[in-house]
Order: sequence, then structure tokens, then C-alpha cells
Amino acid sequence: MNGYSVFCVSDHTGVTVESVAKSVLAQFPKLEFSLITLPFVDTAEKARSAAARIAATPHPLVFSTLTDPQLRAVIGEAGVPPFDIFDLVAPAVAAALGQPATPSGGRTHGMAPDYEARIDAVNFALNLDDGLNPERLDQADLILVGVSRVGKTPTALYLALQYGLRAANYPLTPDDLERGDLPACLTAHLPRLRGLTLSAERLAALRQARYPDSRYASLAQCRSELDAAETFFKRHAVPVVDTTRMSVEEIAAHLRHS
Amino acid sequence: MNGYSVFCVSDHTGVTVESVAKSVLAQFPKLEFSLITLPFVDTAEKARSAAARIAATPHPLVFSTLTDPQLRAVIGEAGVPPFDIFDLVAPAVAAALGQPATPSGGRTHGMAPDYEARIDAVNFALNLDDGLNPERLDQADLILVGVSRVGKTPTALYLALQYGLRAANYPLTPDDLERGDLPACLTAHLPRLRGLTLSAERLAALRQARYPDSRYASLAQCRSELDAAETFFKRHAVPVVDTTRMSVEEIAAHLRHS
Repeated sequence: MNGYSVFCVSDHTGVTVESVAKSVLAQFPKLEFSLITLPFVDTAEKARSAAARIAATPHPLVFSTLTDPQLRAVIGEAGVPPFDIFDLVAPAVAAALGQPATPSGGRTHGMAPDYEARIDAVNFALNLDDGLNPERLDQADLILVGVSRVGKTPTALYLALQYGLRAANYPLTPDDLERGDLPACLTAHLPRLRGLTLSAERLAALRQARYPDSRYASLAQCRSELDAAETFFKRHAVPVVDTTRMSVEEIAAHLRHS
Repeated sequence: MNGYSVFCVSDHTGVTVESVAKSVLAQFPKLEFSLITLPFVDTAEKARSAAARIAATPHPLVFSTLTDPQLRAVIGEAGVPPFDIFDLVAPAVAAALGQPATPSGGRTHGMAPDYEARIDAVNFALNLDDGLNPERLDQADLILVGVSRVGKTPTALYLALQYGLRAANYPLTPDDLERGDLPACLTAHLPRLRGLTLSAERLAALRQARYPDSRYASLAQCRSELDAAETFFKRHAVPVVDTTRMSVEEIAAHLRHS
């Protein structure tokens, strides 16, 4: 194979540089490449070892987010000038602000001030997963509501980990659906409710994977549950996100701005 | 206040552009700013509405990741040239590759191919949280081991959501520690074990928040549990991550490369 080896070099976790590299390389649809992340390159020694690895690899491309210009210079010694996000973006910002960048200025390593809040939010999401501890729903920032397998739990956990939001999730059971309305513990918190829905076909496929050929997974059952849930959401003007073609990241970003 | 309003405009979730903006702006430590994320700006109409909002705001700065150059142009009509990550990075990549970028080429919206694996991994992490279902430990990519409150659960969930890794987590209980070794269900999977530890002071503070003034939260108890766990990790050559000053993202990135 004659594809490129794309190195993502970071003095931190590498999540941002990976994401930028993937997005930019998607603009070169014919390019074949494999991604190699080198995180925590935060000393000259680690940078030299990264540079040696890059130099020893055929067809390398290098993306980096290295705060320290000296480490960038070491990486550049591999003979492949890195696409460094700071190098490429900071000068434009400095020009607009009319003040120079301080390269190793305020790098936020380790635990940012909102860190404890995010971990608390994860514990909250776990404690109020799947209808648990409904007496604590008044402490939630958001309450995700929907039928079984609509994606409530991963979404609540992502909202917690990424944004520090305390998201509870509450399943609409066949009992709720037969009774004909949202349970009272939910209607007490209407402004914080967010409905999740998806296509009956997709829901049936998800349930089928879990309980093959069950009534629970049948298209008719899925359709009737989703219809009932939608009626409740409309009645109480609960904002609804249709998750059919969405990833957890997308659902979470929509909910955060809904 | 005379700070800047920093808009992060994205045709997707906005997570990447927010992260780049925060990192770059950290290089201007004197700058006061507040961050406003405008996600899913993927039509001319939404771009016009974003531009109007930017134009109506005093002291705006605009970071963007907009794949479509036409949408970037609309945003630019606000009178504030956006720092667009694609605009700034893609030309350098195109020059290095000797081929032009195709702006709306391979944008990966919605569910990437690894998406189902990530959701499965979240369910796996939940099903094998805190020692549950040890008979399934052979299905784990990683097994996080450590004493209570060392950060196993959020780390396992992050490994699942971000990287699609199936991470189980197993608590070392006072019983295990008294018995003097890792339980047999763990030693059966040594190559996949990863130890988490942290300073006794930090552990005591975390436990104190949960059960104030308990024996469980006492510094002596924390120290003795951590010492015992460390002895086991050494005996079995289990790689260990010290999480004392680390965020979940950092712990996860270390584990992924350990």
C-alpha cells in the first residue's frame, strides 16, 4: 500500500489534533492514510523520539498542536514540516487583536476548573439512569425521555463528560404508554424535559439486535410506542430530537442548544 | 466589561472548533472573552442568521470549521473575517500533497463507521462497571483496576465514547486487599489489566466529599488501600497510571497508548 502515515502529535491528549486532521484530510477524498497519534509529547526528549519515528516512516504527514515552538522545531527536524494548528491559526488571531501570542501562555493542562463538575455530572447521569432515583429529577439540567433503546443513556453520559451537564434519563415504559400520558414525576419538570425519538425501522433494528424476533423488537410495537410518545411530547410541548441519523455528539449538541 | 465575544461556528457539533479556539486563545492570557457556540450552521439561511447575530454583537471574534466555502463567505459578511480552520490549514496540506482540496469532499456527518462500536462499548462499560458480570471480562479490551473512587467509571465511559474501547472496571475491595492479592478473575486476564492509582491525600478528599468523617475517607485508610493495590500491581507487572493531576481525557489517552 502506498498511502500516507499521518502522525498527530500533541503535548496533550491529541483529541483536538486528531479531529482537525481527520476533518482536513476528508477534503482529500482520494488520499489513503492511516492515523498514528503521539500524545503527551511535552519534553525535548519525547519530541526527538517522535521525530525519529516520523523520519523512519515512509510517506509521513504530520499534524501537531504543540504549544512550545521549540518542540515544534524538534518535530520539524524529521524533515517533514508539521502542519501545526497554533502556527497556522495564532498569527491570524494575533493580527486581528493587534497583540502577539504568548506561545506557552495559558495552556490548560490537567484539570480545568469545570472538571469536578463534569465528573459529578457523570455520577449524576449514572445515578439517574433509566428512571432511577426520580426524587432527584429536580437536580437535573436536562431530563431525556423516550422509549427503550432510543439512545438516552449514551447521550446523557456524553452531555456529562463533554459539557458537564447533569442529564437524567427516563424510559417511557409500555405501562406509561398505555396509561396515556407522561408520568407525574416528569410533568412536574416540564421545562427540563427533552424528548428523543427515531424512526420505527431503526428502533426495530436496534431492538432486534438485542432480543431477536421478540414482540418488543417488532416494527408494529416500535411504531405504536413511538407514536404514543410523540403524542405526549406534542401535548406538553416537549422539544424533540430525532436521533435517526445522528451520532451521540450530534444529539448532545442539539440538546445543548434546544 | 469590554471583553470579546468569541463565536465558534460549525456545520457540525462545534466540539473541534471550540477546542481549537480555547487552545489558541489561551496564548493571549490577558484577553477576556466569553464563548458562544453556533453548531449545525449548514445552510445559507442558518449562516445568514449567524452572521446577523455576530454583526449585532460588540467586539466579536469568529472561529469556524465550515466545510462549504460559500457558508464561510456568508459568515464573513458580518464584517469580521472568520478564523476558519479549513481555510488556514487545508492550503498547507494541499501544497504538501501537490493536490487541491475538495472543500465539501468527504465530510463525515452523522454516524461514522465506528459509531455502533462506540455505543456497544458504552453498553459494555455499563454492564461491566464496578465488578459486574466478571464472567465477561474476557471480552474487554482493557480492565481498569483500583480502589474505590480512583476514577475507574468515568474513565471507562470516556474510553468507550471517544475511542470505542471496551473497558471493564473492577474495584479492589477491602476484602481483596486483606486477602493479599488480586482476585483470580483478574489474574486470568493479566495482559489487559491497567492499574489506576492516585495520591492518598486526593483520594481522601474525594471520599470525604462522599462520606464525610468516615473511616473509609480517612487518610490512613486511603494510604493503606493504595499501598496494598500498588503491591499487587508491581507483583503482576500491571501498568499503572497515576491520576492525581489528570483529567479523564488524559487518563484515557495514557491508557490507550500503554
